[in-house]
Amino acid sequence: MVASMPPETSAGRPSGETGRQRVAISGVSPEIDCGRFPIKRVVGEPVTVEADIFVDGHDLVSAVLRYRHEEDPSWSEVPLEPLGNDRWRGQFTVTRLGRYRYALRAWVDHFATWRRGLARKAEAGQDVAVDLLIGADLLEASADLATGDDAAALRAAAARLREERDPTQRVREALDPALEALVHRCPDTRFATDYDKGLSVVVDPERARFSTWYEMFPRSASPDPTRPGTLRDVEARLPYVAEMGFDILYLPPIHPIGRTKRKGRNNAPVAGPGDPGSPWAIGSSEGGHTAVHPELGTLDDLRRLVRAARELGIDVALDLAFQASPDHPYVREHPEWFRWRPDGTVQYAENPPKKYEDIYPFDFESEQWATLWEELARVVEFWIEQGVHVFRVDNPHTKPFAFWEWLIDRIKRAYPDVIFLSEAFTRPKVMYHLAKLGFSQSYTYFAWRATKQELIDYFTELTRSEVREYFRPNLWPNTPDILTEQLQHGGRPTFMARLVLAATLGASYGIYGPPFELMEHVPFAQGSEEYLDSEKYQVRHWDIDHPDSLREFIGRVNGIRRAHRALQTDRGLAFHRIDNDQIIAYSKVAPGDDDAIVTVVNLDPHYTQSGWLELPLDRFGLEPDQPFQVHDLLTDAYYLWRGAWNYVELDPRRVPAHILSLKRRRRTERDFEYFL
Amino acid sequence: MVASMPPETSAGRPSGETGRQRVAISGVSPEIDCGRFPIKRVVGEPVTVEADIFVDGHDLVSAVLRYRHEEDPSWSEVPLEPLGNDRWRGQFTVTRLGRYRYALRAWVDHFATWRRGLARKAEAGQDVAVDLLIGADLLEASADLATGDDAAALRAAAARLREERDPTQRVREALDPALEALVHRCPDTRFATDYDKGLSVVVDPERARFSTWYEMFPRSASPDPTRPGTLRDVEARLPYVAEMGFDILYLPPIHPIGRTKRKGRNNAPVAGPGDPGSPWAIGSSEGGHTAVHPELGTLDDLRRLVRAARELGIDVALDLAFQASPDHPYVREHPEWFRWRPDGTVQYAENPPKKYEDIYPFDFESEQWATLWEELARVVEFWIEQGVHVFRVDNPHTKPFAFWEWLIDRIKRAYPDVIFLSEAFTRPKVMYHLAKLGFSQSYTYFAWRATKQELIDYFTELTRSEVREYFRPNLWPNTPDILTEQLQHGGRPTFMARLVLAATLGASYGIYGPPFELMEHVPFAQGSEEYLDSEKYQVRHWDIDHPDSLREFIGRVNGIRRAHRALQTDRGLAFHRIDNDQIIAYSKVAPGDDDAIVTVVNLDPHYTQSGWLELPLDRFGLEPDQPFQVHDLLTDAYYLWRGAWNYVELDPRRVPAHILSLKRRRRTERDFEYFL
Repeated sequence: MVASMPPETSAGRPSGETGRQRVAISGVSPEIDCGRFPIKRVVGEPVTVEADIFVDGHDLVSAVLRYRHEEDPSWSEVPLEPLGNDRWRGQFTVTRLGRYRYALRAWVDHFATWRRGLARKAEAGQDVAVDLLIGADLLEASADLATGDDAAALRAAAARLREERDPTQRVREALDPALEALVHRCPDTRFATDYDKGLSVVVDPERARFSTWYEMFPRSASPDPTRPGTLRDVEARLPYVAEMGFDILYLPPIHPIGRTKRKGRNNAPVAGPGDPGSPWAIGSSEGGHTAVHPELGTLDDLRRLVRAARELGIDVALDLAFQASPDHPYVREHPEWFRWRPDGTVQYAENPPKKYEDIYPFDFESEQWATLWEELARVVEFWIEQGVHVFRVDNPHTKPFAFWEWLIDRIKRAYPDVIFLSEAFTRPKVMYHLAKLGFSQSYTYFAWRATKQELIDYFTELTRSEVREYFRPNLWPNTPDILTEQLQHGGRPTFMARLVLAATLGASYGIYGPPFELMEHVPFAQGSEEYLDSEKYQVRHWDIDHPDSLREFIGRVNGIRRAHRALQTDRGLAFHRIDNDQIIAYSKVAPGDDDAIVTVVNLDPHYTQSGWLELPLDRFGLEPDQPFQVHDLLTDAYYLWRGAWNYVELDPRRVPAHILSLKRRRRTERDFEYFL
Repeated sequence: MVASMPPETSAGRPSGETGRQRVAISGVSPEIDCGRFPIKRVVGEPVTVEADIFVDGHDLVSAVLRYRHEEDPSWSEVPLEPLGNDRWRGQFTVTRLGRYRYALRAWVDHFATWRRGLARKAEAGQDVAVDLLIGADLLEASADLATGDDAAALRAAAARLREERDPTQRVREALDPALEALVHRCPDTRFATDYDKGLSVVVDPERARFSTWYEMFPRSASPDPTRPGTLRDVEARLPYVAEMGFDILYLPPIHPIGRTKRKGRNNAPVAGPGDPGSPWAIGSSEGGHTAVHPELGTLDDLRRLVRAARELGIDVALDLAFQASPDHPYVREHPEWFRWRPDGTVQYAENPPKKYEDIYPFDFESEQWATLWEELARVVEFWIEQGVHVFRVDNPHTKPFAFWEWLIDRIKRAYPDVIFLSEAFTRPKVMYHLAKLGFSQSYTYFAWRATKQELIDYFTELTRSEVREYFRPNLWPNTPDILTEQLQHGGRPTFMARLVLAATLGASYGIYGPPFELMEHVPFAQGSEEYLDSEKYQVRHWDIDHPDSLREFIGRVNGIRRAHRALQTDRGLAFHRIDNDQIIAYSKVAPGDDDAIVTVVNLDPHYTQSGWLELPLDRFGLEPDQPFQVHDLLTDAYYLWRGAWNYVELDPRRVPAHILSLKRRRRTERDFEYFL
């Protein structure tokens, strides 16, 4: 249903009614890949739509933005307003989970056109007798479209225009804005142009936009160094996680682990007798993707954990790692889901010359792909039934795109509050495509964006381009697979700086702990990003009460995030000038929020750095040369600043960052969504 | 038919075969408004298509660009080549008038993926016995898709891979590029992803891209000042037009002119007894849009003129002004095509408070719009039957968009060589939209782009953005409606400079003569762009042999255009740095052409200006610090330049421009279309 399609041209004869649809609608934004993919919002957020709308000749146009929740039978409408240069804009707010549709409609506004002409002619002193009669005709046509009082009022107005009275008086009545409003209540849209390409918005819960993740291995959660951790131990650790201010607790796979070709400590090709194996080598005789590893506990323990976490405002997130160990029941029960080699073995995962013999990927090219898809959806639904509504998806880029689109759509139609985080560390177009297909959040390249310019470029792309309509970044300074070179060498200042960057650049971020708060930084080998003695292959015990722990600092940062709405969205991010390449500065603002957060981070872990920071006063509603107070929420210090340029200095041995609260004066509420 | 659509999700069950279509195709370019509109080319031009193409996981992809002339039953294919970052590119050349379709197809290349893995494993010294068997299976599957010798060769190759021989030898055979080529001849495209959105290319004759227009009023073509000119006088003037190097001769409307409300000289509201009226007030008792004004001659004279012009390589272009004088036969015969006012009169053209009472617009909102469209198409077809294949369309922006799309499509399906020039001086989005709808060429804002920066910005937009795919600029320094302030005050240097700019910035340009070559520059009133004693309202006599005439200069410039392919396309335009705001410099190159044209224009009509011009030597295949010769085609002077920076100086009292020919060394033929 493309706007302003040509009339049927079979045999070159004009036909149909599109010949009288004069208005063109194009250049609609947001519109992802011609409407192929939805945009994303959370409940309560506005959707601002713009389009080029124009007509031949000089007639005036009226246009509306139409929207409806997919479950609603009928459209709501809000007017579009012209911005100049044939660009129009309108806005609606999504208030329910699920999917909304939006569309545009525009038509020639003959009454407004006539009204403008009448005013001009009257002003020029031209005879308007005939014009008044034309207006009366228009009002009567309008009355035919109206009902009840409106129709009567329109007919009465028409009759008055026809009366043999002083034209000046009649012109005044004709130009009465109330009359125009009356006409606009029942516009003649017979020849309206509809732009309805099935554009849609997926509406998620707020946590899809604003979330603070903590990843931990349950088997390392034991307070007793003589035994591995369990789900009950994780439950006991919940207050620790909550005190630090996290609201999603993500557990790597909790399923039975295969024994065949099990990896040993530090990814050794052969496991030792006590080695527990990688949690991602899922499945053994004890069960597969819907089983809980007996050493971690029971399904009931998991349900308990989920409930206990919820009472602390925490969602438990599970890992969806769609692959099997050689011992997974699927291998025996569903050989058709695997690729068999001519020697009668199953094709293991490999990226030649590397081999991952403890893991069999599913063969999504199987003739039986449809039953495989069904089973994997069943796995997700199983965990949802246990109370889990957040999933971190392992390597989604190694499974077909069509599968994810189908799976996420199926799940979210039944459970629209479910959140899927895409762990695809791969090429940019693939990452963006997965987000388009439906993932609620996505891991990013943040871990490897180290310099000021790298951070500015990347976060400008993420927050200022069309990408922001469908890709919600989730920033991780570390993961079990990623101990960056910075963290290996930068010490405490780098851990603090990277945490502040993640927590203030991203409305969603996460850390892999306790290694993060304990500043674990020794790699497996020089040049490697793998942790030495990685929890992926062995049980670890962590001294979470160590006095050097960053837990309190993390708690303070996350407290600031909760208290300041500016940090709960990525839309309001803007970078600011500071004349020092080692200091990055940026601010965030949120619609309807009184304060802005200005973050300044020293990227140099070794030396104090200082510089003059330029703030765009306009953005904060500040006057030039007037003093204003900024409050450092990390140190509780107050500073009196004045004008656009102010001095900052950061000593990495103390706190390498400012997170400044700045009360701003808002111009108008309406400006916001455009301003952001 | 969007690429990588989700499988059917009715009741959430996966079905269909799209589940195994793993490749995604998106970001296709060129693609205008999601494929809603075609791109444009002329016969012999390449179409370069790019797309993002990627697959889940690490498999290799093969992709082809498919194309066919609409009249061809089957597709041709050329391979797409990867450019890095999941971007792919391919190219085909259009060789026939009419419409081509293009589409993309991509699939997982299992053989290439296997081949890459085998090579890596062999290099790493891993056992490849099973891999060779897998390869044999793949070759046999490929043989099933092949026929004849290919099938036999594939089966033989498979058998050899299975032989119990030295694996090193078998690997060498498996990696033979000839074997890969054999497999690629009959790829397995069962699960290919098709991107087929009906993308199309309208292929016009070369003159749609490269044309040199001369507009003249026939009634002013008389060599005898005592009588108005006729079509026979125009015929006599053809050698004059041809000597100046023009190839399209555009005549304002040649139809009978109405008498009711006829305008007098200088647009006086009441005509004097001898006033001939505006040619755009079409129609009288002597006929309408298919009649020739009796004072100009007969239909036979027009056909003679068309034939005589063609012998000189000139196309005669007529004006399509779809409006009627009050005396037009249509008003009587088809009152339903006009808007009647309550006082029983017909609505004349107006833009309140301005009135144009000598002109009735058609009412395209009429219930009888379809018969009106048919009649107007008949008018165009009538003139095509007289031999006219180029039309300048008057004010297309005041008629519905759908009408033009329908009309141009209808005409070009029968007569694909017809050229339509859109005379829409209106808002930018409307101008671009008309071009998208099918106009072959479009008037531009060139006349009002006076400063260096204005020219750079505008022509960068026209030649470097997506606009260039559908909007072919036609540059007019003057028209009967446009005597710019510059031409009023700048004298001979400005006429020369504006001519050079139009002729070298635009592959298509035109002048309204003889006022242009005779440097007519007196406006009707101060601040007006109307000519004094405009030919629109009266007969003029021009002394075309006046010694001051620019005719020879114009002839030289147009000769340069004919001799240098670089000036016959807008794709190869690039602006160059020169440290003087009064001098603009740019170059053009054409695919497969050995010389580049560097144009340098002094925009200051009063003073000599000079500066150092920086040429990007790379673009011209020149080495740093090496001397090279430039040849000024306007003055026939030769200069020896060296390196990137060279000095230029232009005295407006002599010639205010250089048009320099510069022999360049091309790197490779293949680079061209991308380079431009």
